[in-house]
Amino acid sequence: MSSTLFQWKKLEDFSAEVFTRAGVPRQHAETVAQSLLHADLRGIESHGLARMPIYVQRIERGLVEPKNEAAVVSRKEASTLLDGQNQLGAVVGKKALSLALEGARKNGTAVIGVRKSNHFGACSFYAEQAIEQGMILLVLSNAPQTMAPTGGIRPFFGSNPLAIGIPAGEEPPFLLDMATSVAARGKIALAAKKGESIPHGWALDAAGMPTTDADKALEGTILPIGGPKGYGIAMFIDILCGVLTGAGFGESVCSLYDNWEHSQNVGHVFLAIEINRFMPLDLFRQRMDTYIRQVKAVPKADGISEILIPGELELRTMKQRKLTGIPLAPPIVRELKEMGSAYGVDLAGARLE
Amino acid sequence: MSSTLFQWKKLEDFSAEVFTRAGVPRQHAETVAQSLLHADLRGIESHGLARMPIYVQRIERGLVEPKNEAAVVSRKEASTLLDGQNQLGAVVGKKALSLALEGARKNGTAVIGVRKSNHFGACSFYAEQAIEQGMILLVLSNAPQTMAPTGGIRPFFGSNPLAIGIPAGEEPPFLLDMATSVAARGKIALAAKKGESIPHGWALDAAGMPTTDADKALEGTILPIGGPKGYGIAMFIDILCGVLTGAGFGESVCSLYDNWEHSQNVGHVFLAIEINRFMPLDLFRQRMDTYIRQVKAVPKADGISEILIPGELELRTMKQRKLTGIPLAPPIVRELKEMGSAYGVDLAGARLE
Repeated sequence: MSSTLFQWKKLEDFSAEVFTRAGVPRQHAETVAQSLLHADLRGIESHGLARMPIYVQRIERGLVEPKNEAAVVSRKEASTLLDGQNQLGAVVGKKALSLALEGARKNGTAVIGVRKSNHFGACSFYAEQAIEQGMILLVLSNAPQTMAPTGGIRPFFGSNPLAIGIPAGEEPPFLLDMATSVAARGKIALAAKKGESIPHGWALDAAGMPTTDADKALEGTILPIGGPKGYGIAMFIDILCGVLTGAGFGESVCSLYDNWEHSQNVGHVFLAIEINRFMPLDLFRQRMDTYIRQVKAVPKADGISEILIPGELELRTMKQRKLTGIPLAPPIVRELKEMGSAYGVDLAGARLE
Repeated sequence: MSSTLFQWKKLEDFSAEVFTRAGVPRQHAETVAQSLLHADLRGIESHGLARMPIYVQRIERGLVEPKNEAAVVSRKEASTLLDGQNQLGAVVGKKALSLALEGARKNGTAVIGVRKSNHFGACSFYAEQAIEQGMILLVLSNAPQTMAPTGGIRPFFGSNPLAIGIPAGEEPPFLLDMATSVAARGKIALAAKKGESIPHGWALDAAGMPTTDADKALEGTILPIGGPKGYGIAMFIDILCGVLTGAGFGESVCSLYDNWEHSQNVGHVFLAIEINRFMPLDLFRQRMDTYIRQVKAVPKADGISEILIPGELELRTMKQRKLTGIPLAPPIVRELKEMGSAYGVDLAGARLE
């Protein structure tokens, strides 16, 4: 079965309307919908509307509290601690982003630690907004367990993601958004479903041996990038987002999908840097353009038509999908339709002819 | 030929004395010696006394200006731009560290951008000092070209390193110090010298094909961790350390070993976070201890006796080497001896019986 094409803005409206009817204040519903569509537009299906059903289910079960407002616990100079009050992650993240940008404008740099949050969507959602405002942003989040420390054979950390946004001038901006694992656990689950094997280097089996068997990988642990290096980065993110903020860490970050008793208690860190303190923003943009052009001019391997900078491919996909629509796979369309029916919101109008 | 054992403090005195006689002010000479011995004590030979001859040669050639003092270009709230004035990197780095820690105490967090610096030794030198002061530190540096962007086949970035230091309580602190490449170029050069092959995944040949031939790898490019992910992280570090600070970036960061015409113009970024703004330091230390104990309790693979946290092995090596001495390989001993002779400083007294 092939995918169906949808008009992105109508999908966003659909999503916001369902969240609103599920009890999320209108403005916050729009933020979450924007986060999901940001991902689908950029081709990051794993963080797009595919997540909407689980978000709605957790609201229905009272595991996310969409009427709450994230609250500043302490704020002094360049340092802020924010309590997400178990609100939807994207709403909490947007608040943290605005505190980070405002703080960096005032202090040159600002760090915002966030506790009691939930899955906050694609990190690039926040980095993109910082770029639009001419700021540098680093976003970190911890996540439920998928990876073992080096030498271990059971998941302890999440494949904790990071994103970095840096504006350029005429060239596309730098937008790196990555998990610290070699591959997403979702990809392994998909391979297992299809009965396919996975590449060497993605995972270990339950005995800690390298495996290409997707089923065995799911019983074991997925691998971080660069072995002990990726383990170190994932642990650093967990410490900053979890240990430092008072959020969950390691096993106390609850699963989005499998835990129906507790809130997630995810932690994030937002760190913004104002470029103007170092050099005029216009000069920085020129230097970035020079830099990016030099990177793209590096001699290429046979068969490589172009060197891309981080985020460039996703930016192109976004521009394309805004014009030609977002393809959604049949299982996702089915779930969205059912959810829409339950809340009296029609998905069909978002379909492209 | 086997290594010779030396007493670490006497080696440090030897090193400081040679640097002083080579024209480095006494206090700065001691800082550079401490940086080198920090690395040798921790078993990071690549950043220890093995670097001393090249540092001295660059001073002799006027490519490093050891009488200069790093100068603050601008400083406001949590943001500082420091010009290293082409002083030795470790001296510049120590100044940046002290500005970062002072700035974070005052503002909660502080970012220090550094330009016109030189090779500043092991990043962990700075992270260790932040840990001793109960602070979180992130250190980044760019470096001469060794790695291509994904799809490229010629070096453009350095294997730009990062270090992160986070204090704990009774457990060893978290100290991650890593290059963004899979393996150091020095290791490939060594394999080439010995006529040995290198593991798959370390490098590409000049045509961009994976190679296990060390000679061919040296004509090509070394690989970043996690493919495009490591490329992104290395590029991020180059942008922050080089593009943002006004230092060199890409090809304009000059080689420590091969460029005898220009200063290096390396850039660094130091970012410190004060823990007390988020929770009392004592509570944080307790949470870190809990966290580290949980990581170490993860079930282990067959043959693994213990899960180590980043920096733990190096800390043990340091404690051991302070007691039993630092082993130096014959070629390094020879170089140090010759350099000592040239400056009238005797190495022999540093030898252990």
